[in-house]
Amino acid sequence: MSTITKSYQTLVGKLEEISHLNGVMATIGWDHQVMMPSGAAEIRSEQIAALAGVIHERMTDPHLEDCLDVLKEENITSLSKIERCNIIEARRNVTLEAKVPKRLVQEMAKLSSQSHLIWVAARQENKFSDFAPILKRFLELKKEWAQCVFPGMDPYDANIDNFERGTVKDEITPIFARLKDELIPLIKAVQDSSYQPNTSFLHGKFPVKKQEMLARQISQDIGFQFDQGRMDVSVHPFCGGSHPTDVRITTRYQESNFIESLYAVIHETGHGLYEQGRMLEGRSLPASESLTMGIHESQSLFWERMIAQSKPFCSHYFETIRATFPENLAGESATSFYQAINSCKPDFIRVEADELTYPLHVILRYEIECGLFDGSISVDDLPGIWGELMFKYLGVKPPTDTLGVLQDSHWSGGAFGYFPSYTLGAIYACQFYRSMVKELPDTEENISTGNFVPIKNWLNEKIHCQGRLCTPQELVMQVTGEKLNPDYFVSYLNKKYTEIYRLS
Amino acid sequence: MSTITKSYQTLVGKLEEISHLNGVMATIGWDHQVMMPSGAAEIRSEQIAALAGVIHERMTDPHLEDCLDVLKEENITSLSKIERCNIIEARRNVTLEAKVPKRLVQEMAKLSSQSHLIWVAARQENKFSDFAPILKRFLELKKEWAQCVFPGMDPYDANIDNFERGTVKDEITPIFARLKDELIPLIKAVQDSSYQPNTSFLHGKFPVKKQEMLARQISQDIGFQFDQGRMDVSVHPFCGGSHPTDVRITTRYQESNFIESLYAVIHETGHGLYEQGRMLEGRSLPASESLTMGIHESQSLFWERMIAQSKPFCSHYFETIRATFPENLAGESATSFYQAINSCKPDFIRVEADELTYPLHVILRYEIECGLFDGSISVDDLPGIWGELMFKYLGVKPPTDTLGVLQDSHWSGGAFGYFPSYTLGAIYACQFYRSMVKELPDTEENISTGNFVPIKNWLNEKIHCQGRLCTPQELVMQVTGEKLNPDYFVSYLNKKYTEIYRLS
Repeated sequence: MSTITKSYQTLVGKLEEISHLNGVMATIGWDHQVMMPSGAAEIRSEQIAALAGVIHERMTDPHLEDCLDVLKEENITSLSKIERCNIIEARRNVTLEAKVPKRLVQEMAKLSSQSHLIWVAARQENKFSDFAPILKRFLELKKEWAQCVFPGMDPYDANIDNFERGTVKDEITPIFARLKDELIPLIKAVQDSSYQPNTSFLHGKFPVKKQEMLARQISQDIGFQFDQGRMDVSVHPFCGGSHPTDVRITTRYQESNFIESLYAVIHETGHGLYEQGRMLEGRSLPASESLTMGIHESQSLFWERMIAQSKPFCSHYFETIRATFPENLAGESATSFYQAINSCKPDFIRVEADELTYPLHVILRYEIECGLFDGSISVDDLPGIWGELMFKYLGVKPPTDTLGVLQDSHWSGGAFGYFPSYTLGAIYACQFYRSMVKELPDTEENISTGNFVPIKNWLNEKIHCQGRLCTPQELVMQVTGEKLNPDYFVSYLNKKYTEIYRLS
Repeated sequence: MSTITKSYQTLVGKLEEISHLNGVMATIGWDHQVMMPSGAAEIRSEQIAALAGVIHERMTDPHLEDCLDVLKEENITSLSKIERCNIIEARRNVTLEAKVPKRLVQEMAKLSSQSHLIWVAARQENKFSDFAPILKRFLELKKEWAQCVFPGMDPYDANIDNFERGTVKDEITPIFARLKDELIPLIKAVQDSSYQPNTSFLHGKFPVKKQEMLARQISQDIGFQFDQGRMDVSVHPFCGGSHPTDVRITTRYQESNFIESLYAVIHETGHGLYEQGRMLEGRSLPASESLTMGIHESQSLFWERMIAQSKPFCSHYFETIRATFPENLAGESATSFYQAINSCKPDFIRVEADELTYPLHVILRYEIECGLFDGSISVDDLPGIWGELMFKYLGVKPPTDTLGVLQDSHWSGGAFGYFPSYTLGAIYACQFYRSMVKELPDTEENISTGNFVPIKNWLNEKIHCQGRLCTPQELVMQVTGEKLNPDYFVSYLNKKYTEIYRLS
């Protein structure tokens, strides 16, 4: 056996072990949010810390570095594309892990676990000043982190890179500027329209048991494999799990509103289909993993918005939904249902926002993060700035910080640079959808007859199976023939909301 | 700081890390049986193997041995009893771990994971010959294991020690002989009695939802803390979880039979109360851990049999149970209920056996294991021997191996020496109960009014909090003033069944 082959095999063994331990951590993390009794919180954080320590140890194992030293770019030309990708990804991960001093890792982990509770309390009590010191400290730590991992890079770009590799402010800012230019007037027009869809029938009493049955059926119809996954309840919907054969989505139920839960399930199913659809080769190796947060979000939004908020989807499922909640939907039609679930109303809370106002919530956070990192915004000024920007972009002003700057958990975990992924994902989703319709002209008909197989297969082949073999930039080029282009998103929204609100 | 204090602190850090990793493993194990989608079986075994490898590595960490070398018996007289116990237990665990060569560990683990499926298939197809080679190989490996860990000891004693530390054949055999002498004629008399309790009302239709509500209420009434535990459904009821603050019991439901599930919940609650009741000091250290399988079983059987199958318990709960299933229990009374749930009928399956016939199921397996280890019984002869002994002890002969030698999973996992713990537990439970009633004369009255607090507190103090500070032999002496004595168990059964079946 050649040195290269031998080193590669050793590398694979080590990477697989790390992947298995990460899989254990993912299961524990899911359990934490879905199953764990409240009294176990303290011991669970000890257990997580112990396992995290082991994983860090494995990631910084000198033998792993030795393998990577042998497997330099110039030596591995004989290996396959996937094998080379595994090496490159492993090198990146190992390098990033090694660059952060243990002290910083520990301080971030500790702050993160403390700050969550402080954020929860501050949000509950509407007291931003209690949370501000944490936020300041996290900013310092995340700037230091950026300095460690990408010394030459702008610190906020480095934080974005953590979630959206290869994407920088210089690319995002003009895209978001374009969205502001287009969407702010569109939202205004929608609000001013004399025609407003009736949404009253979406409020009422919808038994949770029936909601669950409906959600489970639709999730399965669009392709979620329940023998390789689960669906449960958690405080915030998410997609977790330890492996493509163990994908776990969650939702939450309110008896007064079935749409939120149903579309959360479809959203998380989109994430789940990405995971279940990963390449069959080397599923415990980095090349098979999902690409970035933005691409992941493109998959959840693809199903939630491009498919499930479309007319053909509503026309296919309306009878089923009406049969599930006959009293509530007796007098309605597929069209009135379509209009109601797509109604637009500027409001305070991001996670409850419709697809038209959602980007403005993201842009606001993006601009604040830019300012926090370049020093033009100080933490203490956040509540004021938040209110101003909300009013400027959406015409509403949150009456409390609880409904404003304290609403999201991201900053309490130090996740700066994450928010842009949501809207990048929406833009990707729209652009992917357009390419799919070109290649599969029967798509709308298929949706309206409940045949989701060609759609799932297309996404499996074009995106899920690609793993990390290319960058997001290369992927969008490969799938759509051009780079990320917000035009499609803008014209999709314009067309859709002009029609629903009878604007033209 | 003295060298001793320093070494002890280092030891504690390492033991806590191991405990946390074992806690993660326990959660993963629970997930495996309760939550995991079937398609994840393959990756899960890889994940478990990876974590097991880490734990083994930690257990055989040379620095751990260094600490233990410093903390020799003669050096640690200044430490507390609990601290000394932690050291002694750690030394034992480390020594046992180190004595087994990696090759043997791996072969046992591999055989165990393969053999489970082979056993399942053999049981399904009633083909003992498919399982026999596995059983032979496991016997060889377990003899080799015994030779490694306790070179001077009888190999079957070594295997018993694995579950029931300090208990040997020489102690068990006469106890079991006594039980045979007493119970075989008693069972015969019960069967021949002209009075047979009516059990027909225990069969019928009992909605699972109602069963669950009832079980949850009773489990909570007797003391299970649901903020530090859970109750779920699995194929076989068990008590798992990762820590005293994270105790997870399971049951299974059949619509046609609520007693089996209800008493499984009470049984597992008994195990759960042991775990939740562990000492408050050093809960991630070995001194706080439960003592042996037999003592654990004494706690589950204490609640299941001594408490929940008693007259005062039936009289307290009968109205609640009748209100839960009014159609089925309309014409019954607390007395008829008490008699019905305590009816005795020799049958093939151990896990479904009543308390009177159960010991014979265990004794049969114990005698077979003795014979397999001393060579007087060969694996190929097992089906025949099984049938003979069943007929001799219980007067029934299983028509198939599925209902006979293939019924239990224990041997497929190489768990020889485990079975005696069930009946030792029953004897302990009876002896403990007798001491408790002496110390708390109001016990029966308390049970009949649903006041279980004094009972739980007594068990917490006398048994659960004792951890591993003494041996089982010392514990029974400490709690009851004498050594393990089957007299109480025998006379309890004699009295109870003579009365129910009107034998005298």
